[in-house]
Amino acid sequence: MTQSEVKVTAKSLREFTEEVFVRVGMSPEDAAIEADVLLWANLRGVDSHGVLRIPWYVSNVDKGIMNPSPNITGVKETPATVVIESDHALGPAVTVFAMTKVMEKARNTGIGWGFICNHTHQGAMGYYAQMASKNDMAGIVFVCSPPNMAPFGAKAAGVSNSPKTIAVPSQKQRVLFLDRATSMAARGKIWLAVEKGIPIPDSWALDKEGNPTTDPIQAVIFRPVGGPKGSGLALLFECISSVIIGNPLLEPILMAKKVESQPSKQEGTKGAHPDHVPRPIQNSVVAAIDIGQFTDVESYKKHIDNLIDGIKALPKAEGFKEILVPGEPEEKTYDDRIKNGIPLPEGTIRNLRGVAERFGVKLPSGL
Amino acid sequence: MTQSEVKVTAKSLREFTEEVFVRVGMSPEDAAIEADVLLWANLRGVDSHGVLRIPWYVSNVDKGIMNPSPNITGVKETPATVVIESDHALGPAVTVFAMTKVMEKARNTGIGWGFICNHTHQGAMGYYAQMASKNDMAGIVFVCSPPNMAPFGAKAAGVSNSPKTIAVPSQKQRVLFLDRATSMAARGKIWLAVEKGIPIPDSWALDKEGNPTTDPIQAVIFRPVGGPKGSGLALLFECISSVIIGNPLLEPILMAKKVESQPSKQEGTKGAHPDHVPRPIQNSVVAAIDIGQFTDVESYKKHIDNLIDGIKALPKAEGFKEILVPGEPEEKTYDDRIKNGIPLPEGTIRNLRGVAERFGVKLPSGL
Repeated sequence: MTQSEVKVTAKSLREFTEEVFVRVGMSPEDAAIEADVLLWANLRGVDSHGVLRIPWYVSNVDKGIMNPSPNITGVKETPATVVIESDHALGPAVTVFAMTKVMEKARNTGIGWGFICNHTHQGAMGYYAQMASKNDMAGIVFVCSPPNMAPFGAKAAGVSNSPKTIAVPSQKQRVLFLDRATSMAARGKIWLAVEKGIPIPDSWALDKEGNPTTDPIQAVIFRPVGGPKGSGLALLFECISSVIIGNPLLEPILMAKKVESQPSKQEGTKGAHPDHVPRPIQNSVVAAIDIGQFTDVESYKKHIDNLIDGIKALPKAEGFKEILVPGEPEEKTYDDRIKNGIPLPEGTIRNLRGVAERFGVKLPSGL
Repeated sequence: MTQSEVKVTAKSLREFTEEVFVRVGMSPEDAAIEADVLLWANLRGVDSHGVLRIPWYVSNVDKGIMNPSPNITGVKETPATVVIESDHALGPAVTVFAMTKVMEKARNTGIGWGFICNHTHQGAMGYYAQMASKNDMAGIVFVCSPPNMAPFGAKAAGVSNSPKTIAVPSQKQRVLFLDRATSMAARGKIWLAVEKGIPIPDSWALDKEGNPTTDPIQAVIFRPVGGPKGSGLALLFECISSVIIGNPLLEPILMAKKVESQPSKQEGTKGAHPDHVPRPIQNSVVAAIDIGQFTDVESYKKHIDNLIDGIKALPKAEGFKEILVPGEPEEKTYDDRIKNGIPLPEGTIRNLRGVAERFGVKLPSGL
């Protein structure tokens, strides 16, 4: 821990967070979910999706972009699927609702598949997939946003760096879960480079002119992992999560750009339409598969443990002291932070003090 | 076309292929499907999954590894899911059966999700996903095999380079589809380097000692795309396609390796069990989502076209003449080959002559 960090207990930070979101206008139930998801991230070292987001969420509620008291409704339903309108809810409230709903469906039909429409920042996706794995199901989540990543061959944003997560239960390990963006690096890694004042590999991002950059401050457009692989997956995710529920997030912006780049046809087109401006909304798919309908659950978990043991026992590549399975680094951080507290950097503390003052909420002790 | 290649029409090559598989012991229906899938690949330039496989398939049938007349059965069923036992069928026969089945389910429940157990080489996965897109559905397929890829941090095979494919329909374009392995490069690309006698990037594969290699002949273990990203996705695919139906493909081999590396405990263990030897079988997931249950299908296709147009109109990165969307290179090859014929290299022709002679089947004219 550096001198500028302070460690606080998860319990005190959760209470503070919950109270702030109640003051912001959330129901006590939704505020508890919001706090749970943010703390889940902080405890696992995913600080980019933890309490540092609180001031940003508050500011988005102020601007009317994020809705703290949304009217969340299931607008279409089949025996195995559901489409949920978020009404610009913050991610956690609506995604927990959606995952609960698809798990019910999975119990009846083997699989439950939900589309969530028009939510705002989804938060740590792993949380929702792990809801499924805690209930002896496989959980799958992926999310689409307005363009922030250059498709393979382009020097401008055209797809989003859609992250995807899959979680399954095991016995010894708490959970095996993958949570990865389709970009070379997640935003949090670029933020970290800014904070540390170090350069980034030029394979990670482009600057606003579309040129590869090593300066994390200039890095505004993600580059896809594996070129056409990450780029293509992100594009197809949009097709099966956004376009399929009639709420495309990429196309309106791209078509507007296309019109802009053809000045002779600009007049009378959608050139000045507000669709040009990326709306900070997202669509997601959440799915659950009920393991017990296909195999014995305890045997499943034993197999997953064996699989993990087998992978970890492989000969290690040069430079590796240990082979880590997906989710394992996060679990190691969890073990440390649940015991020793969550370290918050100076900047985060300063911002949380501002929030505490505004809403008259008591800060966790030590801050 | 080089001097050592000969072009043949798709029609004549299909007739030849179909006839060979009937002689091998397939039903006329299954032989027609097998020929259709192989020709689909050749027409789209995916020659690694085309007729060059015929001698290998024949040899595997001879050895009793591939079953030309399998007893394919649905062993478990829920309203939205099905588990299908392949009885070591060749991929096309059972996967077409499975995709047909999950499309029926999708019509009733919005989504159909199928697990296929114990099939042999699946062939060109894009074919099956496109069955869904031709029926106004989104198609998803992924496949797991015994270990052939090094997990991130390991210098031995522990996961398989599970390819995944997603296809959706459009109006102007024939289809938007992604078909990509979780490895840096697909096997076909390494084969091509062998054929051309050129080196490969050392990020693609390891030699049998687990060291990165630039020699495509020594390249026997794939390396994952994006390090932990490709590696993690492959591992989670195994969990939700193989382990979930009680037919793990990675774990038995890894556990055997683990036992072997602990000589003191070897006695009385599974050390000498035939499970050690990777069986050339695969498990797959095939899924279909019925678009019309969530949005207007014609409007969906129009949106996909707009999305494609928008991506293609983005400013191009240095060195790119055109931005290609997933599936577009294959469609361009299709347009050429359906018109001008499929070029077959000398080696393939020689092998096909052998097959023709053995079964007394007439070769396509020109071969």
